[in-house]
Amino acid sequence: MTDTRFDVLGIGNAIVDVIAETSDDFLGTHDLIKGSMRLIDEDEAGRIYDGMGPGTEVSGGSAANTIAGVAALGGRGSFVGKVRDDQLGDVFAHDIRAQGVSFTTPTAAEGPLTARCMVLVTPDAQRTLNTFLGAAIGISVNDLDPADVAASKVTYLEGYLWDAPAGPALFAAAATAAAAAGQEVAMTLSDPFCVDRHRTDFLAFIREHVDIVFANEDEVISLYEADNFDEAAKAMAEDVKLAALTRSEKGSVVVSGRERAAVDAVTASVVDTTGAGDLYAAGFLYGYTQGTSLDRAARIGGICAAEVISHLGARPHANLRTLVTENLG
Amino acid sequence: MTDTRFDVLGIGNAIVDVIAETSDDFLGTHDLIKGSMRLIDEDEAGRIYDGMGPGTEVSGGSAANTIAGVAALGGRGSFVGKVRDDQLGDVFAHDIRAQGVSFTTPTAAEGPLTARCMVLVTPDAQRTLNTFLGAAIGISVNDLDPADVAASKVTYLEGYLWDAPAGPALFAAAATAAAAAGQEVAMTLSDPFCVDRHRTDFLAFIREHVDIVFANEDEVISLYEADNFDEAAKAMAEDVKLAALTRSEKGSVVVSGRERAAVDAVTASVVDTTGAGDLYAAGFLYGYTQGTSLDRAARIGGICAAEVISHLGARPHANLRTLVTENLG
Repeated sequence: MTDTRFDVLGIGNAIVDVIAETSDDFLGTHDLIKGSMRLIDEDEAGRIYDGMGPGTEVSGGSAANTIAGVAALGGRGSFVGKVRDDQLGDVFAHDIRAQGVSFTTPTAAEGPLTARCMVLVTPDAQRTLNTFLGAAIGISVNDLDPADVAASKVTYLEGYLWDAPAGPALFAAAATAAAAAGQEVAMTLSDPFCVDRHRTDFLAFIREHVDIVFANEDEVISLYEADNFDEAAKAMAEDVKLAALTRSEKGSVVVSGRERAAVDAVTASVVDTTGAGDLYAAGFLYGYTQGTSLDRAARIGGICAAEVISHLGARPHANLRTLVTENLG
Repeated sequence: MTDTRFDVLGIGNAIVDVIAETSDDFLGTHDLIKGSMRLIDEDEAGRIYDGMGPGTEVSGGSAANTIAGVAALGGRGSFVGKVRDDQLGDVFAHDIRAQGVSFTTPTAAEGPLTARCMVLVTPDAQRTLNTFLGAAIGISVNDLDPADVAASKVTYLEGYLWDAPAGPALFAAAATAAAAAGQEVAMTLSDPFCVDRHRTDFLAFIREHVDIVFANEDEVISLYEADNFDEAAKAMAEDVKLAALTRSEKGSVVVSGRERAAVDAVTASVVDTTGAGDLYAAGFLYGYTQGTSLDRAARIGGICAAEVISHLGARPHANLRTLVTENLG
């Protein structure tokens, strides 16, 4: 690796979450599938918002959560994502910078408002996401400075951004810049429905450009249309150098060639599962870019995931750095 | 009392809180007095916001919190306060309506943005408030429908609104409408510094128009420039029919003529004291308008205050109605 300014640079949707506790009945009334992420337009966003209970606004966005986590652990993070010049855009920009992340993507002066995700948390702590992508999918290739990618040990791509018109071109540009600088590319599959929308493109992109894949069990099975986790993990190992696969309460499995390292989940009092995968990736990437073993990186990921599911919201609360030191030394 | 549509109608500043955990050092650097509320202009709001950590946005405003609490308990609430037609204004309007409160104050189409209060929570759970009043103090007498006041058992006035140019005129109009309809007027003194800014006006208004005063120990002592709580409580009893005086961990004292009813505080694991007084008033007013004894009303207030200080934010989380039933039967 060459000299770096960032440990991890993330590219993804810049979103503010609107979190509300809700009932299973509410999901039924609005035909929402528990645990999934659904894209909605402004009209439907209005309908769901009008119907749901009082909310709490917290900055979110999958890759943005991950980079906030990397920074909270003491890593050097940078984020690329699009907001508008509105109040929620200000909130997003403030929060990620206040976490110590570099965020310099130009703000949109016109067009749709800053993206919002209505996070409906049911009593079983599951979250159902309804995302109005707004300004986030107005991102363009010009919003990325290839010099930033070249100066990052890992560039982390959010699969969800494939839904943006310029997403695939942006990711190709990032991957090219990373390869030219001898840096690595990581990607999260984001969501089984997202995998379903882009399966062929995802596979081609991963095989050509990606060094490290993050996915949960449903996502990796969906990617390969496999019958079970083991079959999917085996296929994954043939396509990338490294994959970190999460399995909820069964912990995670790191796959590298013929090697497998399984790590148990960290026990947590679960309040809201939003951000579990994002913070697992944060912990893993922090460890990985610090040069720890894959096993230890996976353990750091597990600790960060356990912290974020113990409260409402997908950004870390507790001092993650202290938490890791206390648990792993 | 005549027929009513509302148990309590609140008039106050419509504010969205931006809550961040902070250090004592941060307060020192910005010359902030712990535990107080300070009014700031847009420039200073920007400076503090830029310096503070990642935030969580939750609807706030003192009287608005109280009315949200009344509604959460099952009471019929209405709120009068001014927001702009911006994203935080939408958040405020959504949240209070989603709590079941009637909120029909016309939205400002121009002028300052919706009010924000930066709530800095130190490790000792104390909160230090920095309020940019924005659109909230653009409220005018025309924003109040006297028919709503006439249809409310109690009209609850937030002392802070005295800082709005039209605040005193609005409160006089509300008090006149309430008296004409044979309804009652309650007022919270809000903050010792607020009392200090408006002592003479507060005393004159209370003596002429107010039936029930809510205040904490510091506020009532400041109002009468008294040497101690007992002296202040005695003076208060001569000026109003009823006063509910809160004393933090010492509980509350209800003062009515020569009667005194002291109620112990409810034990709580304190995370953030924001909203303690607001939710005490909610519980008390709910009980009072349901016709319970003053002692029971004070106990309901204590339960609601204990709930709101057990988490970040000044709006209730737990089902207050269930909580009261479980504790008081």
